[in-house]
Amino acid sequence: MPSLVDLSAALAQFDQPWQPRTVAMLNDYDVRVVHTKGEFARHSHPETDEFFLVLSGSLTIRMDDGDVTLGPGQLYVVPRGTPHQPSSTDGAQVLLVEPSATVNTGDNPGELTAERRVV
Amino acid sequence: MPSLVDLSAALAQFDQPWQPRTVAMLNDYDVRVVHTKGEFARHSHPETDEFFLVLSGSLTIRMDDGDVTLGPGQLYVVPRGTPHQPSSTDGAQVLLVEPSATVNTGDNPGELTAERRVV
Repeated sequence: MPSLVDLSAALAQFDQPWQPRTVAMLNDYDVRVVHTKGEFARHSHPETDEFFLVLSGSLTIRMDDGDVTLGPGQLYVVPRGTPHQPSSTDGAQVLLVEPSATVNTGDNPGELTAERRVV
Repeated sequence: MPSLVDLSAALAQFDQPWQPRTVAMLNDYDVRVVHTKGEFARHSHPETDEFFLVLSGSLTIRMDDGDVTLGPGQLYVVPRGTPHQPSSTDGAQVLLVEPSATVNTGDNPGELTAERRVV
Protein backbone atom coordinates (compact mmCIF):
# COMPACT_ATOMS: atom_id res chain seq x y z
CA MET A 1 0.00 0.00 0.00
CA PRO A 2 1.44 3.41 -0.87
CA SER A 3 2.21 5.87 1.90
CA LEU A 4 0.65 9.18 2.71
CA VAL A 5 2.77 12.05 1.34
CA ASP A 6 3.26 15.19 3.37
CA LEU A 7 4.23 17.84 0.84
CA SER A 8 6.05 20.10 3.30
CA ALA A 9 8.09 17.18 4.58
CA ALA A 10 8.96 16.09 1.05
CA LEU A 11 10.05 19.62 0.10
CA ALA A 12 12.18 19.85 3.24
CA GLN A 13 14.32 16.96 2.01
CA PHE A 14 16.05 19.04 -0.67
CA ASP A 15 16.49 22.65 -1.67
CA GLN A 16 17.97 22.80 -5.16
CA PRO A 17 15.68 24.88 -7.39
CA TRP A 18 14.20 23.42 -10.59
CA GLN A 19 15.04 19.85 -9.55
CA PRO A 20 11.70 18.05 -9.16
CA ARG A 21 11.27 15.05 -6.91
CA THR A 22 8.61 12.44 -7.58
CA VAL A 23 6.54 11.89 -4.44
CA ALA A 24 3.78 9.63 -5.78
CA MET A 25 2.55 7.94 -8.91
CA LEU A 26 -0.94 8.07 -10.38
CA ASN A 27 -1.24 5.40 -13.09
CA ASP A 28 1.54 6.38 -15.53
CA TYR A 29 1.74 9.92 -14.18
CA ASP A 30 4.18 11.35 -11.64
CA VAL A 31 3.21 13.67 -8.82
CA ARG A 32 6.24 15.86 -8.22
CA VAL A 33 7.29 18.68 -5.93
CA VAL A 34 9.81 21.32 -6.91
CA HIS A 35 11.42 24.42 -5.49
CA THR A 36 11.48 27.23 -8.05
CA LYS A 37 13.78 30.23 -7.85
CA GLY A 38 14.98 32.54 -10.61
CA GLU A 39 14.58 31.81 -14.31
CA PHE A 40 13.98 28.44 -15.90
CA ALA A 41 14.56 27.56 -19.56
CA ARG A 42 11.87 28.32 -22.12
CA HIS A 43 10.61 25.02 -23.48
CA SER A 44 7.55 23.07 -24.49
CA HIS A 45 6.27 19.54 -24.10
CA PRO A 46 4.97 18.42 -27.50
CA GLU A 47 3.43 15.27 -26.04
CA THR A 48 1.66 16.46 -22.91
CA ASP A 49 -0.08 19.13 -20.90
CA GLU A 50 1.69 20.11 -17.67
CA PHE A 51 -0.02 20.83 -14.32
CA PHE A 52 1.36 23.44 -11.91
CA LEU A 53 -0.09 24.12 -8.45
CA VAL A 54 1.68 26.68 -6.29
CA LEU A 55 1.89 25.60 -2.64
CA SER A 56 3.75 28.67 -1.39
CA GLY A 57 5.46 31.69 -2.91
CA SER A 58 4.90 32.99 -6.41
CA LEU A 59 5.52 31.50 -9.85
CA THR A 60 5.12 33.27 -13.18
CA ILE A 61 4.70 31.20 -16.35
CA ARG A 62 5.63 33.28 -19.37
CA MET A 63 3.92 32.33 -22.61
CA ASP A 64 3.56 33.98 -26.00
CA ASP A 65 -0.07 34.88 -25.22
CA GLY A 66 0.84 36.45 -21.88
CA ASP A 67 2.05 35.69 -18.40
CA VAL A 68 0.23 33.72 -15.74
CA THR A 69 1.29 34.45 -12.16
CA LEU A 70 0.28 31.89 -9.56
CA GLY A 71 0.18 32.28 -5.79
CA PRO A 72 -0.64 29.69 -3.12
CA GLY A 73 -3.69 27.60 -3.96
CA GLN A 74 -3.68 28.59 -7.63
CA LEU A 75 -3.10 26.17 -10.47
CA TYR A 76 -2.54 26.32 -14.20
CA VAL A 77 -2.29 23.67 -16.90
CA VAL A 78 0.11 24.57 -19.72
CA PRO A 79 -1.32 23.06 -22.91
CA ARG A 80 0.82 20.56 -24.77
CA GLY A 81 3.14 22.12 -27.29
CA THR A 82 2.90 25.59 -25.75
CA PRO A 83 6.25 27.30 -25.20
CA HIS A 84 6.53 28.45 -21.62
CA GLN A 85 9.19 29.87 -19.36
CA PRO A 86 8.70 29.47 -15.63
CA SER A 87 10.11 32.32 -13.59
CA SER A 88 10.11 32.75 -9.84
CA THR A 89 11.93 35.84 -8.63
CA ASP A 90 11.13 35.35 -4.98
CA GLY A 91 10.86 31.57 -5.06
CA ALA A 92 8.00 29.13 -4.77
CA GLN A 93 7.14 25.57 -3.87
CA VAL A 94 5.16 23.88 -6.58
CA LEU A 95 3.26 20.63 -7.13
CA LEU A 96 3.51 19.16 -10.64
CA VAL A 97 1.47 16.39 -12.24
CA GLU A 98 2.61 15.04 -15.58
CA PRO A 99 3.29 11.74 -17.33
CA SER A 100 6.21 9.96 -15.66
CA ALA A 101 8.29 10.18 -18.86
CA THR A 102 8.10 13.98 -18.89
CA VAL A 103 11.48 15.73 -18.65
CA ASN A 104 11.50 19.15 -16.98
CA THR A 105 13.12 20.99 -19.91
CA GLY A 106 10.93 19.31 -22.55
CA ASP A 107 12.16 20.07 -26.08
CA ASN A 108 14.99 22.32 -24.83
CA PRO A 109 17.45 20.14 -22.93
CA GLY A 110 20.43 21.79 -21.26
CA GLU A 111 22.12 22.28 -17.96
CA LEU A 112 18.78 22.63 -16.17
CA THR A 113 17.63 19.21 -17.37
CA ALA A 114 16.94 17.00 -14.36
CA GLU A 115 16.85 13.24 -14.21
CA ARG A 116 13.74 11.64 -12.75
CA ARG A 117 14.29 11.35 -9.00
CA VAL A 118 12.00 9.81 -6.44
CA VAL A 119 11.96 11.18 -2.89
CA MET B 1 -5.45 29.54 -23.48
CA PRO B 2 -6.82 28.00 -20.30
CA SER B 3 -7.37 30.19 -17.28
CA LEU B 4 -5.65 30.22 -13.94
CA VAL B 5 -7.71 28.33 -11.36
CA ASP B 6 -7.99 29.66 -7.83
CA LEU B 7 -8.97 26.66 -5.74
CA SER B 8 -10.59 28.64 -2.93
CA ALA B 9 -12.67 30.60 -5.42
CA ALA B 10 -13.74 27.41 -7.19
CA LEU B 11 -14.74 25.77 -3.91
CA ALA B 12 -16.71 28.86 -2.90
CA GLN B 13 -19.02 28.36 -5.89
CA PHE B 14 -20.79 25.37 -4.35
CA ASP B 15 -21.14 23.64 -1.04
CA GLN B 16 -22.79 20.26 -1.56
CA PRO B 17 -20.52 17.55 -0.14
CA TRP B 18 -19.27 14.69 -2.29
CA GLN B 19 -20.18 16.50 -5.51
CA PRO B 20 -16.90 17.14 -7.34
CA ARG B 21 -16.47 19.96 -9.80
CA THR B 22 -13.94 19.77 -12.62
CA VAL B 23 -11.76 22.88 -12.58
CA ALA B 24 -9.15 21.95 -15.21
CA MET B 25 -8.12 19.19 -17.58
CA LEU B 26 -4.71 17.61 -17.91
CA ASN B 27 -4.64 15.53 -21.09
CA ASP B 28 -7.49 13.04 -20.54
CA TYR B 29 -7.50 13.61 -16.79
CA ASP B 30 -9.75 15.87 -14.75
CA VAL B 31 -8.57 18.08 -11.93
CA ARG B 32 -11.50 18.31 -9.53
CA VAL B 33 -12.32 19.97 -6.24
CA VAL B 34 -14.78 18.56 -3.76
CA HIS B 35 -16.20 19.33 -0.36
CA THR B 36 -16.28 16.24 1.83
CA LYS B 37 -18.47 15.87 4.92
CA GLY B 38 -19.68 12.72 6.63
CA GLU B 39 -19.50 9.25 5.11
CA PHE B 40 -19.09 8.41 1.45
CA ALA B 41 -19.89 5.05 -0.14
CA ARG B 42 -17.29 2.29 -0.07
CA HIS B 43 -16.22 1.62 -3.64
CA SER B 44 -13.28 0.95 -5.90
CA HIS B 45 -12.12 2.04 -9.32
CA PRO B 46 -11.04 -1.10 -11.19
CA GLU B 47 -9.55 0.95 -14.01
CA THR B 48 -7.58 3.69 -12.29
CA ASP B 49 -5.64 5.01 -9.33
CA GLU B 50 -7.22 8.02 -7.60
CA PHE B 51 -5.33 11.06 -6.26
CA PHE B 52 -6.51 12.91 -3.13
CA LEU B 53 -4.85 16.08 -1.80
CA VAL B 54 -6.44 17.70 1.23
CA LEU B 55 -6.51 21.49 0.97
CA SER B 56 -8.20 22.13 4.31
CA GLY B 57 -9.88 20.06 7.01
CA SER B 58 -9.41 16.35 7.52
CA LEU B 59 -10.26 13.32 5.36
CA THR B 60 -9.95 9.67 6.34
CA ILE B 61 -9.75 7.02 3.64
CA ARG B 62 -10.75 3.66 5.07
CA MET B 63 -9.22 0.64 3.37
CA ASP B 64 -8.98 -3.04 4.25
CA ASP B 65 -5.29 -2.60 5.12
CA GLY B 66 -5.96 0.36 7.41
CA ASP B 67 -7.03 3.95 7.47
CA VAL B 68 -5.17 6.91 6.02
CA THR B 69 -6.04 10.29 7.54
CA LEU B 70 -4.99 13.33 5.55
CA GLY B 71 -4.71 16.92 6.72
CA PRO B 72 -3.85 20.06 4.74
CA GLY B 73 -0.93 19.57 2.38
CA GLN B 74 -1.08 15.78 2.56
CA LEU B 75 -1.89 13.54 -0.38
CA TYR B 76 -2.60 9.90 -1.01
CA VAL B 77 -3.09 7.85 -4.14
CA VAL B 78 -5.58 5.00 -3.76
CA PRO B 79 -4.36 2.17 -5.98
CA ARG B 80 -6.67 0.95 -8.71
CA GLY B 81 -9.05 -1.76 -7.63
CA THR B 82 -8.61 -1.01 -3.93
CA PRO B 83 -11.87 -0.72 -1.99
CA HIS B 84 -11.92 2.54 -0.08
CA GLN B 85 -14.43 4.55 1.91
CA PRO B 86 -13.77 8.25 2.28
CA SER B 87 -14.99 9.69 5.56
CA SER B 88 -14.79 13.25 6.79
CA THR B 89 -16.44 13.82 10.13
CA ASP B 90 -15.48 17.48 10.41
CA GLY B 91 -15.37 18.20 6.70
CA ALA B 92 -12.58 18.90 4.24
CA GLN B 93 -11.81 20.51 0.92
CA VAL B 94 -10.03 18.13 -1.40
CA LEU B 95 -8.27 18.23 -4.77
CA LEU B 96 -8.75 15.13 -6.95
CA VAL B 97 -6.89 14.11 -10.07
CA GLU B 98 -8.23 11.17 -12.05
CA PRO B 99 -9.12 10.19 -15.61
CA SER B 100 -12.03 12.32 -16.87
CA ALA B 101 -14.23 9.23 -17.24
CA THR B 102 -13.92 8.38 -13.54
CA VAL B 103 -17.22 8.37 -11.63
CA ASN B 104 -17.04 9.26 -7.95
CA THR B 105 -18.72 6.08 -6.69
CA GLY B 106 -16.73 3.77 -8.98
CA ASP B 107 -18.08 0.23 -8.94
CA ASN B 108 -20.76 1.05 -6.35
CA PRO B 109 -23.21 3.48 -7.96
CA GLY B 110 -26.04 4.86 -5.87
CA GLU B 111 -27.57 8.03 -4.59
CA LEU B 112 -24.14 9.58 -4.03
CA THR B 113 -23.16 9.10 -7.67
CA ALA B 114 -22.43 12.49 -9.23
CA GLU B 115 -22.46 13.46 -12.88
CA ARG B 116 -19.34 15.08 -14.27
CA ARG B 117 -19.72 18.81 -13.71
CA VAL B 118 -17.39 21.56 -14.78
CA VAL B 119 -17.13 24.73 -12.68
